[in-house]
Amino acid sequence: MKRIEIINGPNLNLTGIRQPEIYGSTTMEQLLSRLRERFSTAQIGYYQSNIEGELINRIHAVGFEADGIVLNAGGYSHTSVALHDAVAAISTPVVEVHISNIFAREEYRRHSMLSDVCRGMVCGLGLEGYRFAVESFLLD
Amino acid sequence: MKRIEIINGPNLNLTGIRQPEIYGSTTMEQLLSRLRERFSTAQIGYYQSNIEGELINRIHAVGFEADGIVLNAGGYSHTSVALHDAVAAISTPVVEVHISNIFAREEYRRHSMLSDVCRGMVCGLGLEGYRFAVESFLLD
Amino acid sequence: MKRIEIINGPNLNLTGIRQPEIYGSTTMEQLLSRLRERFSTAQIGYYQSNIEGELINRIHAVGFEADGIVLNAGGYSHTSVALHDAVAAISTPVVEVHISNIFAREEYRRHSMLSDVCRGMVCGLGLEGYRFAVESFLLD
Amino acid sequence: MKRIEIINGPNLNLTGIRQPEIYGSTTMEQLLSRLRERFSTAQIGYYQSNIEGELINRIHAVGFEADGIVLNAGGYSHTSVALHDAVAAISTPVVEVHISNIFAREEYRRHSMLSDVCRGMVCGLGLEGYRFAVESFLLD
Amino acid sequence: MKRIEIINGPNLNLTGIRQPEIYGSTTMEQLLSRLRERFSTAQIGYYQSNIEGELINRIHAVGFEADGIVLNAGGYSHTSVALHDAVAAISTPVVEVHISNIFAREEYRRHSMLSDVCRGMVCGLGLEGYRFAVESFLLD
Amino acid sequence: MKRIEIINGPNLNLTGIRQPEIYGSTTMEQLLSRLRERFSTAQIGYYQSNIEGELINRIHAVGFEADGIVLNAGGYSHTSVALHDAVAAISTPVVEVHISNIFAREEYRRHSMLSDVCRGMVCGLGLEGYRFAVESFLLD
Amino acid sequence: MKRIEIINGPNLNLTGIRQPEIYGSTTMEQLLSRLRERFSTAQIGYYQSNIEGELINRIHAVGFEADGIVLNAGGYSHTSVALHDAVAAISTPVVEVHISNIFAREEYRRHSMLSDVCRGMVCGLGLEGYRFAVESFLLD
Amino acid sequence: MKRIEIINGPNLNLTGIRQPEIYGSTTMEQLLSRLRERFSTAQIGYYQSNIEGELINRIHAVGFEADGIVLNAGGYSHTSVALHDAVAAISTPVVEVHISNIFAREEYRRHSMLSDVCRGMVCGLGLEGYRFAVESFLLD
Amino acid sequence: MKRIEIINGPNLNLTGIRQPEIYGSTTMEQLLSRLRERFSTAQIGYYQSNIEGELINRIHAVGFEADGIVLNAGGYSHTSVALHDAVAAISTPVVEVHISNIFAREEYRRHSMLSDVCRGMVCGLGLEGYRFAVESFLLD
Amino acid sequence: MKRIEIINGPNLNLTGIRQPEIYGSTTMEQLLSRLRERFSTAQIGYYQSNIEGELINRIHAVGFEADGIVLNAGGYSHTSVALHDAVAAISTPVVEVHISNIFAREEYRRHSMLSDVCRGMVCGLGLEGYRFAVESFLLD
Amino acid sequence: MKRIEIINGPNLNLTGIRQPEIYGSTTMEQLLSRLRERFSTAQIGYYQSNIEGELINRIHAVGFEADGIVLNAGGYSHTSVALHDAVAAISTPVVEVHISNIFAREEYRRHSMLSDVCRGMVCGLGLEGYRFAVESFLLD
Amino acid sequence: MKRIEIINGPNLNLTGIRQPEIYGSTTMEQLLSRLRERFSTAQIGYYQSNIEGELINRIHAVGFEADGIVLNAGGYSHTSVALHDAVAAISTPVVEVHISNIFAREEYRRHSMLSDVCRGMVCGLGLEGYRFAVESFLLD
Repeated sequence: MKRIEIINGPNLNLTGIRQPEIYGSTTMEQLLSRLRERFSTAQIGYYQSNIEGELINRIHAVGFEADGIVLNAGGYSHTSVALHDAVAAISTPVVEVHISNIFAREEYRRHSMLSDVCRGMVCGLGLEGYRFAVESFLLD
Repeated sequence: MKRIEIINGPNLNLTGIRQPEIYGSTTMEQLLSRLRERFSTAQIGYYQSNIEGELINRIHAVGFEADGIVLNAGGYSHTSVALHDAVAAISTPVVEVHISNIFAREEYRRHSMLSDVCRGMVCGLGLEGYRFAVESFLLD
Repeated sequence: MKRIEIINGPNLNLTGIRQPEIYGSTTMEQLLSRLRERFSTAQIGYYQSNIEGELINRIHAVGFEADGIVLNAGGYSHTSVALHDAVAAISTPVVEVHISNIFAREEYRRHSMLSDVCRGMVCGLGLEGYRFAVESFLLD
Repeated sequence: MKRIEIINGPNLNLTGIRQPEIYGSTTMEQLLSRLRERFSTAQIGYYQSNIEGELINRIHAVGFEADGIVLNAGGYSHTSVALHDAVAAISTPVVEVHISNIFAREEYRRHSMLSDVCRGMVCGLGLEGYRFAVESFLLD
Repeated sequence: MKRIEIINGPNLNLTGIRQPEIYGSTTMEQLLSRLRERFSTAQIGYYQSNIEGELINRIHAVGFEADGIVLNAGGYSHTSVALHDAVAAISTPVVEVHISNIFAREEYRRHSMLSDVCRGMVCGLGLEGYRFAVESFLLD
Repeated sequence: MKRIEIINGPNLNLTGIRQPEIYGSTTMEQLLSRLRERFSTAQIGYYQSNIEGELINRIHAVGFEADGIVLNAGGYSHTSVALHDAVAAISTPVVEVHISNIFAREEYRRHSMLSDVCRGMVCGLGLEGYRFAVESFLLD
Repeated sequence: MKRIEIINGPNLNLTGIRQPEIYGSTTMEQLLSRLRERFSTAQIGYYQSNIEGELINRIHAVGFEADGIVLNAGGYSHTSVALHDAVAAISTPVVEVHISNIFAREEYRRHSMLSDVCRGMVCGLGLEGYRFAVESFLLD
Repeated sequence: MKRIEIINGPNLNLTGIRQPEIYGSTTMEQLLSRLRERFSTAQIGYYQSNIEGELINRIHAVGFEADGIVLNAGGYSHTSVALHDAVAAISTPVVEVHISNIFAREEYRRHSMLSDVCRGMVCGLGLEGYRFAVESFLLD
Repeated sequence: MKRIEIINGPNLNLTGIRQPEIYGSTTMEQLLSRLRERFSTAQIGYYQSNIEGELINRIHAVGFEADGIVLNAGGYSHTSVALHDAVAAISTPVVEVHISNIFAREEYRRHSMLSDVCRGMVCGLGLEGYRFAVESFLLD
Repeated sequence: MKRIEIINGPNLNLTGIRQPEIYGSTTMEQLLSRLRERFSTAQIGYYQSNIEGELINRIHAVGFEADGIVLNAGGYSHTSVALHDAVAAISTPVVEVHISNIFAREEYRRHSMLSDVCRGMVCGLGLEGYRFAVESFLLD
Repeated sequence: MKRIEIINGPNLNLTGIRQPEIYGSTTMEQLLSRLRERFSTAQIGYYQSNIEGELINRIHAVGFEADGIVLNAGGYSHTSVALHDAVAAISTPVVEVHISNIFAREEYRRHSMLSDVCRGMVCGLGLEGYRFAVESFLLD
Repeated sequence: MKRIEIINGPNLNLTGIRQPEIYGSTTMEQLLSRLRERFSTAQIGYYQSNIEGELINRIHAVGFEADGIVLNAGGYSHTSVALHDAVAAISTPVVEVHISNIFAREEYRRHSMLSDVCRGMVCGLGLEGYRFAVESFLLD
């Protein structure tokens, strides 16, 4: 049984609540239920924090045992060298997810510090992006 | 009765103690007493943390109910996309305050990541800047 | 029956042949067979050219009728304003795909001129990225 | 009796007339009346010009005698070395005011040449910003 | 009867006199006579000043009544935020004209601060450019 | 009898069809008819291609015989050194045309690689810009 | 008896475990034992955290009493204005240490926000760098 | 018998015709005759196109069989990621040639996208540069 | 008899009054007397204005008749394209003077827009620099 | 017996003489005596030159035989590609030393061309830095 | 009889010795013998120095008499304004040679200060590049 | 009797010989004779070298005894940190001289590394500039 960990960064606890015209009205809890139902043979963990160091702690904790990490680091994606190092330090592969298309937004949001140490990125496909990222770990 | 929340970021707990020749010797506690006395018909909350994510948590907590937030994010003002997103996600308007004139200091301190999602800024007017910011929410 | 068009740009005709240790040994023909089998209720078109203007011609031709375009413009992704305009001019939504993680490669490859007019991007997930992009158009 | 001089730069003579949905419909004359009424123990002067050199002349004229200058140099704020030098040459302290939040506008408007020689800045608080700036000179 | 105002900035009073091998030997007075003869059903005004603030005053004066302004701001085109603001503040549309091809000259002359608030630009077509700009206001 | 060639680049075959609220509903065929009627003593050729190299071929073909070329290279205007070289290599003068005001659009569209080898530019005056450019070749 | 505090930032808790071919297999605990044995007349404290704000808290706590701080802020070294401010606010001198040669690594790692407020830097000399930094405080 | 392919990009079909004071009056046909005479034991192919994608097609076609490619991509040299990828994808080594000294010309012409995947470069030695490049493949 | 014109820009009317510890206590009037005494066979004119356009007017007025202009444009030296054009348009040679060493001051003061159209520069030699500049016109 | 070579670049022959309030009054000769006494089992060579090429010659001469080089290249550290190449060409490891904290000085002094080919750096610890660098070669 | 001078800069005296897997094992002496044998009707001089000023002296010495200079300035190529001036000051034409492909190496090595004053460049063709450069001077 | 030292850098030994149409045909020897004749009560030394380190040596040698140094460091002016340090290390004031107007030349020549540590600069006034610089030391 494969183990996939979804890790969400700052402000993503408000998903489904803030700006529903942009982000939709599905909450992370609802998404998680759907994913667990669809991929019932996998074990899908979930973690969210607004605190950068706690995200690092979590990446350390699961990053040598999980089969894949789906990471949406929110605003920290664009500035954090420490998160970059955490991803680089672990052995579990990571796929970066962004709900919106970060390349169609403000200039400072068009670059991710994490991309070059992740396996790949899915962005702009809404919450479905989490599903594709999870599935990419379950293919083989 | 209007509710205003003052949120202070890193190192501001030392106000009145560190470099009094620059920042003066009034502490935040003393400032708060004075403000509550002056604007007795308003409810003025206060929160301080040195941890970026805790500031985000606080902005989430009060940002849909308070009538105004006075935010001095200290050193995080200049780099944090995550704080920027937190301010953008809430419905309460925010006025940015800096005790000193950030434009007369080091190059990297002359840009704030928060300014474009705040309603306005007061800087360089000392602790009185907090008063002006609070008052701007109580005018009408 | 939905109609999805896959459009590939320069050098992608060599997929499966050049540098198989990076790109794998599956050819575009094999991928296409698999996709058509999996999504048998959709009509999946395919077009490849090394010539920038012919890619524009194709986008014009299908861009008002197809339900979705999956576009990997290869090296033109990073420099072409004309392709950007073609994508912006049509009504069919476009999802950008890159086989490798463009953010882990040379500096000039880390920016796509197309991203801001596409709906989203999938990169670094190998040929499976084409599948996810196709599927994102068939969800609803 | 303290003497405060308000100096307004180019296009500010249109305040209350141009784009009232942005700047409101209060004119500078109305603002001035209100300020003189509120701070009746102070002498509040007013000067406006669209000509850069005339602003410099005025700063020279009052800059050794007034107790404070409230300066909104409009479009010149972002480019004028000569105004910067004028402010630096005088002995009266200056507080910079902008009606709108300059940090939420075009890139070239997000930097003021004057900030580093002023005592502080108030921006984005509308015409009330003039009041706060005047008041900051009358506190002690 | 339509009213068109031609406004010329610094050094353009020397047209026909300075460097005739580049700018030709026609003076502004001669051009104006020809334009008034050709478009006899329109009222064509003319104003020139070397002083930046006087140009702003003139734009204010005619910018709510004229049907079109033809503006050649000379050297101020490349640096003036204040002129940019003046053009943005008025309701009359403005077409920018340059006698020479500014894009074939020095680096600092290849960018105009005014272009993004004007309706369009004509450059490099000599004094005839003024005629085309005037005519563009008289078409419909 | 003078010979003028109009050459249009990528996506301009959609003029009158795409985004009519921006570009109007006149097609290039209609424009051409009008121009040929108005300037009946001149011979006005027309060529359009989405392929960069074919545009170069055309410039070579007419660039030593025509009396003037009116060139709207669309998206290639902003990046093509090869088109720049083609214009520089021929003896026929070229006037650059853009339907919209490129200086009021995205950053990367505000610079044209062709401007410094053309005689001049007309932009932002809609399809009428083609007429002015043609006329500038017929004046003397 | 002198008091020296060693403060380690994010990911350094994995020293001796992650990438031993780069960082060696000595853990921080082993290093600490050796240092305490060698400099038995000094009191050597130790603190590690992955959370930026906690590092600031610690610097505040010891920064007015210790005789020297040896600081390896890991990934935060390259971006943190807040840590910079914390170091600037205290009275204890700080020497910056990096285990590897940061100047032989990625571009964004070649600049430290802390260097200009520290007394000096030792880098690229492995864990021995901690010893040299400690010793530099014990010389006189 | 070795096989060498000379591939010329945009505008080079005009060599010997355009600006002979710079490029000389020898045509590519004359050069080719001389080279075939001099290196009679080698097979020297020739291809020219103004179309970027056709150059890529040609590189694909000969790039796994020829012993060497002499490539002058003209204006495409400075911007084309796609040509860069085509050169990187083939097994035949490529030597880049420029007739003039690109480093003594305009800024945007001083960088070639192809140099880092070619074996070497010869520039500024006129048409003789093609001979040296061909010869470098025939040495051993 | 040679005619030399000295033209001074903004804030230089305060010379001898503002910051005498930097600029000395000699006024421009005193300097002028000394120069006229020393070079009694020449005619030395003088003009000062804080208004950019008036400086241009003066340069136009004397720039075709005087034998030399000594120009200290103060703060306008660093930004004015219009003054640059005025100097370029006239036939009288100009020598630029700065009282202080502009290269030892703030970054934005280290570049002069005027230098490349002047004959030369004297800076950092105090008021004596005016003398050297005047004398350089009287040598032959 | 290990052999360590200390190599000093331009102006370091003045150590102990120039600006003693910054660099102290110990001369290089005195430092050398102390080092030789402390590390009596090692052979410590010394070389100083103000001429860049002579430093290169020295690095060549000892760079294949010495066990370690301690290099303070002074002002050349910040610009010399040639010294960089010399260090890269030899087999002896090099540790870079700077007496002062180069990161707290002028901008152009904050980057060393040598750092990425050295083993490490010690800076800001005064002449003691030479001792630490020597000692780092004698540890094992 | 033509006279050609080959001038080699820093570290090139090690050619054939350092990193033979990159530079080959042919020494400069062996290359020189071969060239003198091949071009026996020319006089081929040779000079090498690691000292920048001596290279300048040599360029001065032969730069008014030799028929051509073949210059490989090694590491100085990338930084030396003084060598650039020396090449510009002489009348003999210079061809720049680099053994390796400088465009496929580190960023700072991809620009030569000398290219714009040389006649041309040969790079990446190994020691044979010297032969081609010499031959380019002997053609006519 | 005052002692003034003139120090000339690379290529200036060719003055009067190279490009006389630019630099005139007066040699440094002739200039020196004239200066010694004119200022007969002063002692005027002279030194020239093409070697950077020797210039530093000379500045050291006279920089504590001479009353003034006139320095034209030629090409080294624009890059040499070491020369900058040498000027900063001595007590004799230095005036920088350039024969031509460096601000009307290539971009990289428009900045001098020495200006901020010199007392002032004279440029563009030909060899007469040396005279003015010498005279500035003899005024009081």
